[in-house]
Amino acid sequence: MTKVVLMSGDEDISDLVQPILRAAPELDVVMHGEQSASDAEIAVCWNPPVGALASLPKLRLVHSIAAGVDGILSDCAFPSVPLCRVVDPQLARGMSEFVTWGVLHYHRQLDRVLANQPIERWFRHEQGDSSECAVGIMGLGEIGSRVAMDLQRFGFAVRGWARKPRELSGVTTFAGPQEFRHFIQGTDILVCLLPLTHETRWILNATTFEYLRPGAKLIHVGRGEHLVPADLIAALTSGKIGGAIVDVFPNEPLPPKDHMWRAPNLIVTPHMASVASWDTIGTQVAANARRLIRGEPLQNVVDVTLCY
Amino acid sequence: MTKVVLMSGDEDISDLVQPILRAAPELDVVMHGEQSASDAEIAVCWNPPVGALASLPKLRLVHSIAAGVDGILSDCAFPSVPLCRVVDPQLARGMSEFVTWGVLHYHRQLDRVLANQPIERWFRHEQGDSSECAVGIMGLGEIGSRVAMDLQRFGFAVRGWARKPRELSGVTTFAGPQEFRHFIQGTDILVCLLPLTHETRWILNATTFEYLRPGAKLIHVGRGEHLVPADLIAALTSGKIGGAIVDVFPNEPLPPKDHMWRAPNLIVTPHMASVASWDTIGTQVAANARRLIRGEPLQNVVDVTLCY
Repeated sequence: MTKVVLMSGDEDISDLVQPILRAAPELDVVMHGEQSASDAEIAVCWNPPVGALASLPKLRLVHSIAAGVDGILSDCAFPSVPLCRVVDPQLARGMSEFVTWGVLHYHRQLDRVLANQPIERWFRHEQGDSSECAVGIMGLGEIGSRVAMDLQRFGFAVRGWARKPRELSGVTTFAGPQEFRHFIQGTDILVCLLPLTHETRWILNATTFEYLRPGAKLIHVGRGEHLVPADLIAALTSGKIGGAIVDVFPNEPLPPKDHMWRAPNLIVTPHMASVASWDTIGTQVAANARRLIRGEPLQNVVDVTLCY
Repeated sequence: MTKVVLMSGDEDISDLVQPILRAAPELDVVMHGEQSASDAEIAVCWNPPVGALASLPKLRLVHSIAAGVDGILSDCAFPSVPLCRVVDPQLARGMSEFVTWGVLHYHRQLDRVLANQPIERWFRHEQGDSSECAVGIMGLGEIGSRVAMDLQRFGFAVRGWARKPRELSGVTTFAGPQEFRHFIQGTDILVCLLPLTHETRWILNATTFEYLRPGAKLIHVGRGEHLVPADLIAALTSGKIGGAIVDVFPNEPLPPKDHMWRAPNLIVTPHMASVASWDTIGTQVAANARRLIRGEPLQNVVDVTLCY
């Protein structure tokens, strides 16, 4: 009986046991910390404690419970076994819902309208034309492409930036560090959907914000470590950035009293932009476990040199 | 030289003079109240004072500056001349932006998330599946159809209700008073995009709210006189309705101290969902003026027995 261990350094992921067993009852699923976990062959992880994976001598596969794997690869003792992630079409839909909400919120100036209600102020802002609003998407993978497509349907001028050149119908695309500044300079609403890698860590910093159009908006749904919080707060305070929605933080939950909670024109959301359901995660983990057991090719394998 | 008079009982519409003249410099455009207005042949109106139209002996055409004409037809002395309205594709796009924002706001529970920020509360709500969220659209004209289509792309279960049976791909449709209750009972988010007619006046009342699913949401972007404000406030207070966005009011601007400003879970927006630009209105009015002068068929003529 193949043993699967569930490992998380922060969140409780025990809700995943039943969905995995429903999809593959032949597996033996245990929690990290249990005595019997030491001979597990498969580890299913969300931010595992450093060194925990290296302590499993029989380990043959590590599976992320999310699309991102940075919380796993940050373990410098990551063993040389395959790493897979969850790729869920629902995940892209949920992300598109959230980003579209944010883009419309700023495009139609609902941030200002909502702020007027407590003071009983009736003020109709000029209604902008979406074709004159440039939405810049950082990251053009499965999720970024879907978001770009949905925003185009509303007539927004969508531009995108990725590590390597990408072609996307109707989207003006930019690639690599050499085109980054040009990409940012033409953007009214910046959306971060990047994976966290050595190249993208702290990419949302004062220099990037300086390139943006005055009063531009930010929607950050990438990873906490993309953003330098003090730089964002400074840009919001000066008005260089007119508003921001931040969904991800280096420390989650965002601690009470953190300055981000009360920064001007900043909307804090609780890492909610898109979450795969336990059922979807369980099904994908179980399917890859069976492939491993049968010696079949695994799905959604991560290139650990790229971190995605 | 054909004379055009601009008439409005409440809002200043003098910004429309130049766009009309740019499109048709041969017209003579004057404001209501000026001595020379009495021999106008065309009246361009937004809520004209009662009887003002009947006092123009040479009147041959009345043109609304909006898609709605209820503020014009409420004049019981409305003369027997053609009435035209503005039909602007941008108007449908703007409305779809606003309604999509509102539907996503409620579907993703952003109302509750935004309320958590001042108390520094980090709480991730369950992420619902859009296919399990029924959005019910009242009114399936040009604007309602466009909104239905855009919401379908996000996977929402879209249903629609109109006076007469309509077929819309992928939309479950209902027609007339006999199917109204069934339509409402299956709705999680109700969107009012109806024209104001004798049949639809005060349609958003306690009885309608009683049919809704508990905790359902309302997005009202029709006309002020569709909604009984006291009934909405009661339904919000009891929790029968979980949240509402109201963009239109019988008296606009909504007066200070009006109870609507501070009703629980109610978002007040300043009749902003979609407004045609002065340029678009001017161009359409000028084009119909020229058709009238040349004896050509007018465009976007209203059936005054239907009010749209």
